Amino acid sequence: MAKLPEILKKTIVARSRFFAVEELELRFSNGARRTYERLRPGTAGAVMVVPLLDDDTVLMIREYGAGVEDYTLGLPKGGLEPGETLEQGAHRELQEEVGYGATRFTVLKALSLSPGYMASRLSILVAEGLYPSRLDGDEPEPIEVVPMKLSELSDWAWREDLHEARSLAALYLVRDLLRARAEQLPHND
Amino acid sequence: MAKLPEILKKTIVARSRFFAVEELELRFSNGARRTYERLRPGTAGAVMVVPLLDDDTVLMIREYGAGVEDYTLGLPKGGLEPGETLEQGAHRELQEEVGYGATRFTVLKALSLSPGYMASRLSILVAEGLYPSRLDGDEPEPIEVVPMKLSELSDWAWREDLHEARSLAALYLVRDLLRARAEQLPHND
Repeated sequence: MAKLPEILKKTIVARSRFFAVEELELRFSNGARRTYERLRPGTAGAVMVVPLLDDDTVLMIREYGAGVEDYTLGLPKGGLEPGETLEQGAHRELQEEVGYGATRFTVLKALSLSPGYMASRLSILVAEGLYPSRLDGDEPEPIEVVPMKLSELSDWAWREDLHEARSLAALYLVRDLLRARAEQLPHND
Repeated sequence: MAKLPEILKKTIVARSRFFAVEELELRFSNGARRTYERLRPGTAGAVMVVPLLDDDTVLMIREYGAGVEDYTLGLPKGGLEPGETLEQGAHRELQEEVGYGATRFTVLKALSLSPGYMASRLSILVAEGLYPSRLDGDEPEPIEVVPMKLSELSDWAWREDLHEARSLAALYLVRDLLRARAEQLPHND
């Protein structure tokens, strides 16, 4: 594997309320130089929650996405608030967006969006031991909760309104995890 | 499902060479108003290629990502050039980044990155009938090609250097597709 390129210079070249664009001057180990732009990393982390109602049922949500100007299916997610752990942020988002609390969280993996021009990582947490519990978030309208069977994921994955890559990846990872768990359980045969 | 919110106003609030940030004023069907920021949609599309060397082998690549400041595993991808179809763009990227041409492309699905604040969609294409063919791209250093067995995806998916959500989702989708194809083939038993 190649040696990491050297970062010669970082400059903020544009900024809005929520975004900052950073220009990066790089020298690769072979001497090649490039200037790239990327979205500047945010300070806090972010979480995506896979709420497991039972061993085969995930609670998904349908909400409006201003980027695609449409309602889309996905998993609850959000940025951490100052001082929150991953589990605390996941528990808050779960209660705000799905109306459930959970007794057990497992951190699965941190997914990246676009390693080429975004630093952000989204930590995927599985939530189990669900119980009804609602917190008010800042949602402009009630979020629709949509139960999905993991055993039917291979069909759901082709739906037109389920296209967000991180939700799809998280669902497949959880399906793998549950299958591996099931294989470790003692069998009756 | 709720009626789509009305877009009252769109304003560009920041701009760099590659990015433009747009502010969106929305009125939801219940009357709630929100102002969101999003990255403005690019004009052309983008493609991600799943190069199938055989029914179980995908050619992945390892390249530097300026966003995460590290080398990461993923699938070849890139923006379309003016006038290119999805298949033409996929064929060019495959030859530039992997050093293979392909005789057959199948469009699987268009994945979104972050529906809340990005419009961009990435079309996933499976490339089959591979043959050696190289085009020069604008890569600063040679890209390492890493063959991966789809039958081992459930292990690879947990690797630390494989975290890009769209690559993971695309790999799982292709594994599903190939399994469905295999079930449709006549059996000898």
